[in-house]
Amino acid sequence: MQLPSVLLENAVNEFAKLPGIGKKTALRLVLHLLKQDTGNVQLFSETIAKMRQEIKFCQRCCNISDGDICAICANSFRHQKTICVVENIRDVIAIESTQQFNGTYHVLGGLISPLDGIGPDQLNIESLVNRIQKEETEEIIFALNPNIQGDTTIYYIQKKLQPLNCTATTIARGISFGGELEYADEMTLARSLANRLPVQQYVKG
Amino acid sequence: MQLPSVLLENAVNEFAKLPGIGKKTALRLVLHLLKQDTGNVQLFSETIAKMRQEIKFCQRCCNISDGDICAICANSFRHQKTICVVENIRDVIAIESTQQFNGTYHVLGGLISPLDGIGPDQLNIESLVNRIQKEETEEIIFALNPNIQGDTTIYYIQKKLQPLNCTATTIARGISFGGELEYADEMTLARSLANRLPVQQYVKG
Repeated sequence: MQLPSVLLENAVNEFAKLPGIGKKTALRLVLHLLKQDTGNVQLFSETIAKMRQEIKFCQRCCNISDGDICAICANSFRHQKTICVVENIRDVIAIESTQQFNGTYHVLGGLISPLDGIGPDQLNIESLVNRIQKEETEEIIFALNPNIQGDTTIYYIQKKLQPLNCTATTIARGISFGGELEYADEMTLARSLANRLPVQQYVKG
Repeated sequence: MQLPSVLLENAVNEFAKLPGIGKKTALRLVLHLLKQDTGNVQLFSETIAKMRQEIKFCQRCCNISDGDICAICANSFRHQKTICVVENIRDVIAIESTQQFNGTYHVLGGLISPLDGIGPDQLNIESLVNRIQKEETEEIIFALNPNIQGDTTIYYIQKKLQPLNCTATTIARGISFGGELEYADEMTLARSLANRLPVQQYVKG
């Protein structure tokens, strides 16, 4: 694709670096910005730069935050001795939108994945173990994606936690609501058979 | 979607203003930028702002350009007395990538569309008529999208051109290559029957 302007080409290339955006989409976005007032585009560009420069991470749970401590950690109505361990901030947002969890979070910033060169040292695992020790946490709930990386991470953290007096659980895997048995994959179906629940507990839950 | 930071929320809202980008995609893009170096994000934001501030439009054909005259107009190997009239710069790029057109362009910047409040005055139609008059253009080729707005625009410009000695043509509409007759819509099929070509001309073309 031959563009008639270097300025345009640079802008398209910058947009095309974003995930899921190819050259054609990038051009569409840039041409849209070109139709806007200079002021609006200035605002767009400044907002992005400011966000990157000034954003902080909560010193306690590593969630994105405007201050030193995020709003969830600072909320005294939440149960501070329950920690939900998640991979990233998108998972925090997903769980928060269920309005069913009243504890705090710990954002790992990724999952252990030796193939991608991500070891435990690059994740917020040490700060999690220190936090559990210091705050005498009662329960940690692993809400990680159900894949090899997720299971490895759970296994690694679980080993670190053995000396501590802290219950560890993981969110249930099984057939999703609205899902149909015949279309479920074998792994999910096998796991949901193995981890079957007493009906009384299911009805109560 | 409740975001844990105002800075993050502002950045997501800015991205979500772009066409075809919703809040979830915007969040994914912003979180990607958050993982990048501050320098890279600075570069991203500066490139966009600079593009909007400094980009020029060719004084002759209204195409996007780095200087007063775009590279296509400045190219003396191109046939300067043939003008291809297009809606926007994306169409210029599409036609250029065929490498089959050796004339110049005129970018209208839109199509006449009374329902959207776009009249001839908001488009680069006057500059086109002046240009044809001044440069004694021999042929203008309309390459506009085949819809009501496109046809209205062709009709309007055609009327303006009647006093001038200039051939006006429009790109052929018909069954696309690789297309199948039975799946073509009736309008296209009817038009391609009405505008049938002598076989000799087809084989030559």
